[in-house]
Amino acid sequence: MKRRNFLKVTAATAAAATLGGCTREQIEGSKSIHVNRQRKVTLKLATSWPANFPIMGTGVDRFAKMVNEMSGGTLKIKVYPKNILVPALAVFDATSSGQIDAFHSGPYYWKGKDPAFALFSGAPLRMVASELNGWMNYGGGYDLWRELYAKYNLYPFIGGNTGVQMGGWFRKPIESLEDLKGLKMRIPGLGGEVMAKLGVNPILLPAGEIYTALERGTIDATEWVGPALDIRMGFYKVAKYYYTGWHEPGSILELTFNKTRFDSLGDEHKAIIRYASEAMSAQMYTEFMDQNARALKKLKNMNIQVLDFPKEIIEAAKRAMLEVAKSQSEKSADFKRVFHSMEEYYRLVKPWTDISEAKYLSIR
Amino acid sequence: MKRRNFLKVTAATAAAATLGGCTREQIEGSKSIHVNRQRKVTLKLATSWPANFPIMGTGVDRFAKMVNEMSGGTLKIKVYPKNILVPALAVFDATSSGQIDAFHSGPYYWKGKDPAFALFSGAPLRMVASELNGWMNYGGGYDLWRELYAKYNLYPFIGGNTGVQMGGWFRKPIESLEDLKGLKMRIPGLGGEVMAKLGVNPILLPAGEIYTALERGTIDATEWVGPALDIRMGFYKVAKYYYTGWHEPGSILELTFNKTRFDSLGDEHKAIIRYASEAMSAQMYTEFMDQNARALKKLKNMNIQVLDFPKEIIEAAKRAMLEVAKSQSEKSADFKRVFHSMEEYYRLVKPWTDISEAKYLSIR
Repeated sequence: MKRRNFLKVTAATAAAATLGGCTREQIEGSKSIHVNRQRKVTLKLATSWPANFPIMGTGVDRFAKMVNEMSGGTLKIKVYPKNILVPALAVFDATSSGQIDAFHSGPYYWKGKDPAFALFSGAPLRMVASELNGWMNYGGGYDLWRELYAKYNLYPFIGGNTGVQMGGWFRKPIESLEDLKGLKMRIPGLGGEVMAKLGVNPILLPAGEIYTALERGTIDATEWVGPALDIRMGFYKVAKYYYTGWHEPGSILELTFNKTRFDSLGDEHKAIIRYASEAMSAQMYTEFMDQNARALKKLKNMNIQVLDFPKEIIEAAKRAMLEVAKSQSEKSADFKRVFHSMEEYYRLVKPWTDISEAKYLSIR
Repeated sequence: MKRRNFLKVTAATAAAATLGGCTREQIEGSKSIHVNRQRKVTLKLATSWPANFPIMGTGVDRFAKMVNEMSGGTLKIKVYPKNILVPALAVFDATSSGQIDAFHSGPYYWKGKDPAFALFSGAPLRMVASELNGWMNYGGGYDLWRELYAKYNLYPFIGGNTGVQMGGWFRKPIESLEDLKGLKMRIPGLGGEVMAKLGVNPILLPAGEIYTALERGTIDATEWVGPALDIRMGFYKVAKYYYTGWHEPGSILELTFNKTRFDSLGDEHKAIIRYASEAMSAQMYTEFMDQNARALKKLKNMNIQVLDFPKEIIEAAKRAMLEVAKSQSEKSADFKRVFHSMEEYYRLVKPWTDISEAKYLSIR
C-alpha cells in the first residue's frame, strides 16, 4: 500500500473510531497503528567527489539509502556531487552558513581555517583507522573535533576511512635520503610538510593535471590514495615504482552537518544519522580494502614494482614529523591540544596493536 | 507530547479533515503528519553471556538501544543474558524453533550441528577482522552463512569481532615444539585441533573452573580472549607467561534471527536491524581494542611476561592447520565449500594487507 493511501485509510478509521458506531475490529485496528512523530525532512548534502566516485562517493549514496530505508522515507538525504550546488572545496563554508545542510569530505582540506583540522584526518606515522576510531570514541577525539567545529556551527561524524594509503608513484627508485633532495612530488598536507623537511619540493596540483605532469616529468612523483583509486588515474603507465605508505596511515573522511539543522531534527532522525554514519564508515573501510586488493592484483600484471622506502628515510621522516608537530603547536594552541590528545591515545594503544594485529600479521 | 496523546490529536485532526469544516491550517497539519506503517514489535533476544558482560554483552544492550532510538520505540529488543530464558548454548536451538526471536553468540559453538559453522568465526592463522568483513560482504561469505543457517530457519548478521585474540596463559615458558608435548591446555575449536596435532592435550572446561584448574596445575595453560576479558579471570596470578595470538586472529560474533520472524518484519525494521548490527559490530571491535589496550597496561604492572611462540611452533601450526582443514573437508562437504571460499578470498586480500596494514605497522 502506498503511504498516501494508507494515510487516507488511517484518517477514515480514526474518524470512525472517534465518531463511534465502529466495530471492535476497527478500534483495534486504529489502536495498533503507530503514528510516528517524525515529520518529513529533506537534507541537502554536497560532497567533494565527482558523481559516482568509487567508494568515497558511492558510499555516501549508500548512506542516503540507509537513512531513507530506516526512516521509512521520512528523512531524505539528497546527495550532490562536487560542483553541482557548490564547488568541491566550498562545502565546509556552504554547510557552515546553512546554504546546504551537510557535506562529505576530508578534514585536512580545512587546515587553512584551523591547523588542528588537519589532525582530524589522522597524522603521518601515527595511528591507523581502528586506533583513530578508538581515539575519537574513547580518547577524547570526538569531543575536541565537535568543540572546534562548533565554532563554525558544524557537527561532524566520521564518514569512512581510506585505510593505509600508499606512499606514491615514483619515476625513479628511491634508494637513500639523497635521492629525495630536490625531488618534485605532488603531496599535500602534513605528509608534504614532512617531505619538505627531507628535501622534497612538495607541489600542489589539481587532480586533473597530475597524470600529465608526471608523464612529462614536470613532477618526479605523486601520491594519491591506494590501488583502487590510483589505477583509475593511470599513474602506473608513467611511473613504475609504487612505494608503500607512511604519510596517511588511515585517513578519516568526514560527514558533517550544519549544527543548527542537525539539532532541529527529531530524536529518531538524529539516531538514524548517527548510526547510519557508523555503518557507512565501516562499509567504506571494508570496501577500500576489498577494492584495493582487487586493483593491486591487476597492477601486478602491469610491470610495476612495489617497494618500501629505505629505513633511513622512514627514521628521518619520524624525526621530521615531530619537528612539524612542534612548529605547528607553537603557532596554534588548537593544534597543540589536539596533537597532545592523539599522542596520549597513541601511547596507550600502540603496545596493544604491537602484540596483537602487528605481531599476528608478521607471523601468519 | 506523549505518543498516546499524539495519536488522539491525529485522529481528531484526521476526523476534522475528513468531515470538512476545518481550517486550512488543520489540513496542512494533518498532511504533514507522517503515518508510519510499522506496528509495534518486541523481539526476545538471548545471549550466551552473563548480565553486563563487558563489550560482548554491553554491546548487545547498545544494539537494543540503537534499534529503539531509530525506530522511535516501535521496535523493542528485549535482551536476556544467558540462563534467564534459555541456557547459554541453547540459544541456537531456541531461536531456530521460534521459542525466542534472536540470539547473540559465536558461530563456533555450533560446529556439532555442522563443522562448517566453526569457520564463520574465522580460522586459525588466516584472516583478521577486516579481511573477514571483506569475505562476508564481497567474497561470498554472507551468502554461504545464510544458505547454511537457512536450514535451521536462521538469518545471521555479523555481531562484532574480538580482534586478534591472545595465544593464552602458560605456567611455564614454551621454548620449542618439544615443550608442547603432553601439555594440558584449555583450548576449544579449530585452534584446539591444531594444538592437538602439535602434541597438546586440549581440555574443555567451563569458564568457572578454569582458574582453579590452572592454579592447581590440573591444566598447564589456557587461552581465553584478550587482556580486557582475561584480566577479570585473574589468570595473571597463577600463570606468568602470556603468549601472543595465532589461533583466533579475529573471531566473528553473531547476531542471528529466526528467519520467519525476521522476514515478517516491515522494511523499516529490517533496515534498522541490518544497519544497527553493522554499527554495533564496528563499535564492539573498537571497544575491544580500547579495553584491551587499557588492560594490557595494567597487566604489565603485574609481573607477567608477554612472549611470542617460537617460529618452529608457528610453522608447525600452519602445517597442522592445513591437515585439520583437509580432514574436516573430507568429512563435511559444507566445511570444504566454506573453507575453499575463505581461502580464495584470503589469497586475494593478503597481498594487499601485507603491503598496507602489515607493512606500515612494522615500520611506524
